[in-house]
Amino acid sequence: MAVSEFDLIKTYFNKPGLIPTKEQSVKIPLGIGDDCALIELPPGKLLAISMDTLVADVHFPAKADSALIAQRALAVNLSDLAAMGAEPLAFTLALSLPKADESWLQAFSLGLETLVQTYHCPLIGGDITKGPLSITIQVHGLLNKGEVMTRSGAKPGDLVYVSGELGAAGLAVSLMNNGMLLDKPDTQELHTAYFQPVPRINLGQSCAAIASAAIDISDGLMADLGHIAKQSGVGIELNAKAIPIARAVKKFMSTMGDKSQGLNLALTAGDEYELALIVAEDQQEALQQTAADLNVPLTLIGHVVKGTRVKCLNNDGQEIEVKTSGYQHF
Amino acid sequence: MAVSEFDLIKTYFNKPGLIPTKEQSVKIPLGIGDDCALIELPPGKLLAISMDTLVADVHFPAKADSALIAQRALAVNLSDLAAMGAEPLAFTLALSLPKADESWLQAFSLGLETLVQTYHCPLIGGDITKGPLSITIQVHGLLNKGEVMTRSGAKPGDLVYVSGELGAAGLAVSLMNNGMLLDKPDTQELHTAYFQPVPRINLGQSCAAIASAAIDISDGLMADLGHIAKQSGVGIELNAKAIPIARAVKKFMSTMGDKSQGLNLALTAGDEYELALIVAEDQQEALQQTAADLNVPLTLIGHVVKGTRVKCLNNDGQEIEVKTSGYQHF
Repeated sequence: MAVSEFDLIKTYFNKPGLIPTKEQSVKIPLGIGDDCALIELPPGKLLAISMDTLVADVHFPAKADSALIAQRALAVNLSDLAAMGAEPLAFTLALSLPKADESWLQAFSLGLETLVQTYHCPLIGGDITKGPLSITIQVHGLLNKGEVMTRSGAKPGDLVYVSGELGAAGLAVSLMNNGMLLDKPDTQELHTAYFQPVPRINLGQSCAAIASAAIDISDGLMADLGHIAKQSGVGIELNAKAIPIARAVKKFMSTMGDKSQGLNLALTAGDEYELALIVAEDQQEALQQTAADLNVPLTLIGHVVKGTRVKCLNNDGQEIEVKTSGYQHF
Repeated sequence: MAVSEFDLIKTYFNKPGLIPTKEQSVKIPLGIGDDCALIELPPGKLLAISMDTLVADVHFPAKADSALIAQRALAVNLSDLAAMGAEPLAFTLALSLPKADESWLQAFSLGLETLVQTYHCPLIGGDITKGPLSITIQVHGLLNKGEVMTRSGAKPGDLVYVSGELGAAGLAVSLMNNGMLLDKPDTQELHTAYFQPVPRINLGQSCAAIASAAIDISDGLMADLGHIAKQSGVGIELNAKAIPIARAVKKFMSTMGDKSQGLNLALTAGDEYELALIVAEDQQEALQQTAADLNVPLTLIGHVVKGTRVKCLNNDGQEIEVKTSGYQHF
C-alpha cells in the first residue's frame, strides 16, 4: 500500500521523545509541520550550525541496524557542535529511503530518540524522500558570544590535547571493508566505537572559554590537526609515544604481531569523534581540571610551533612516516 | 586523479559570489571552513529554517543541466521562506555526487551563484560526499517576531488567493515522465516553469503582516490548501472558474482537445512554487495593493468556510471531482 510522506512523518518523527518538550519550545516557537521551523535566540547567544551527510555503503553498511545508523548520523553531527563548544539546541533531518520500510523506520526513530534525550537536542524539521538510502542532518547549537573555539586560534607555544583514545573506529571501518561483521564479543568494542561514537558535548562546552582552538577527529588526527595548522598559520609537533591508542586496537594489533600499525591507525583514522584541543600554556591546568571534573580522559600529545606542517616525532625527535593522510572523499 | 572534498569545496563553493559579502558577514560571523558556521540574529528577529532534498531521477532528471538542477534546488527551498514571509539570510548545501565531475560542478556552482545574488542568500556551510546524486539544502531566513505566516491561522470568512498561474511545472513533469525532453521552442515555458521556478520572496515578505496563513504550492494546490485546512481546523471552497491556469497548459490542452485536464493539473500539480495566501476580508485591499506594487499577478480563488475539506466548485455550486490529491512520496 502506498504510504505518504506525511503519514511517515506523523508516525515516526513528529512524536513525543523526538520533538521539543514544552520547555524547549521557548527557543523553538515552531517545529515540524509548517513551511519553516522557527528558532529564537536568547540574548548574547550565537547559533552554531553544521551539516553532515551519511550515504549507505559509503559512510555506513546499508544493512546495519537502522537504530545504530540513526545514532551514528546524529552523533557525528553533534560532534561538530562539541568541537565548537556549542550547547545542542535542535536538529533537522533529510532522509532518503528506497522504500517505506516501517520496521526500519521504527528502529531508526528509536535510535534517534536515545540521543535526542541524552543531548537535549530535539527534531524540528526536515524532509523524507524516496531515493537511495542517505541521511543528512543539520545540527543547531548555542554559543555565548566571545566564547567560540574555531580552527584558527592556535598559536606557537600552545599545547595540543586529545580526548579519549584513538584508532578503534578506524579499525572497525577497515575490518568492515574487508567483509567482517563485528558481531562477535571480541569485536564489540570496535562495533561500539564505530556505530555509537560519543560526541564530547560536555567537554566542548566546558572548554569554550578555555581553549584557543579545537576540532573533532573526523578525517583523522593528523589531517584534522592539519586543518587547524592551516587555518591558524602554524605547525604542530606530536609526540608519538603520547598518542593514546585504543585498548581494542592494541589488542588486535598484538594478535596480528604488528604493533606499528596501531600508531598509524590512531594518527590517521577518521570517524573517531574525539576532540583535539589547543590551549595556551597558562590554561593547561584549567583544561585538565575541566576534563577531570567531567571524567573525560585527556592526553597531552604535542605542541604548536612556528611552521606549516603537522609532524609526529619519535623519542629521538625523528619524524615518523605516516601512511595515509585521512579520509579522501573522491 | 583523486580529488579531495576540500579541493572541491575550495574551487567550486568557498568563493566570492557564493559566500557572504562583507556586509552579510555581520549576521554570519563564520561561514564555510570550520566545524560549524555561526549566525547572529538582529534583535527582534526569529530565524526561519527549512530543508528540502532533491534526488536524481526522483525530483529531477539526472541528466539535466547541473546549473538548472542547482537553481531548482535552491529555488524550492527559498519558496519555503517565501511561504513563511521570511527574508533570505543564508543556506547550507549537502551534495552527494557519484564522482568529482568538474564540469558538472562548475555549472552547478554558477547556477547557485545566480540565485545567491538575486536573493542575497549566500552559502555558509554543508558537506560534499561520494554517493548517488542528491542535493539537500537548508535555507535560513529572518522574520520579525509577531509577523509570521503559518499554516494554522486561517479562519472561516477569510479569502483565498494564489499568486501567478498554475499547472505548467506539473505538465512539464508529466511530459518528462513520458520521455519528452522539453528542449523545443514550444515547450520552453514548461521547461522554465519546472527548472527555474520563481520563489515569491518579495510577495511573501510583504504579506507577512497582512495574511492570516500561507503555503507554497509544492504538493499541489488542493493538497497544500488541505494542509492549511487541517492545521487551521477549517474547510476551503474554491471557485473552479477562477483558478488561474498557465497559458502554456491551456495551449497544450487545446492542442490535445482535452480542456478539462488543464483545471485538474492546476488543482493537483506540485512543483509550482506559487504562494497560496489566506487573508481576512478587511485585509483584501492591502493584499491586492501589495501584489500590484510588486507586479505579481494575484487571483482570488475561493474562501475559507467551517468544515474540514477542500472542495472545488463549478458555477452551479457542484463539487468537481479531482483526479489526484498531490504528490505522494512513497
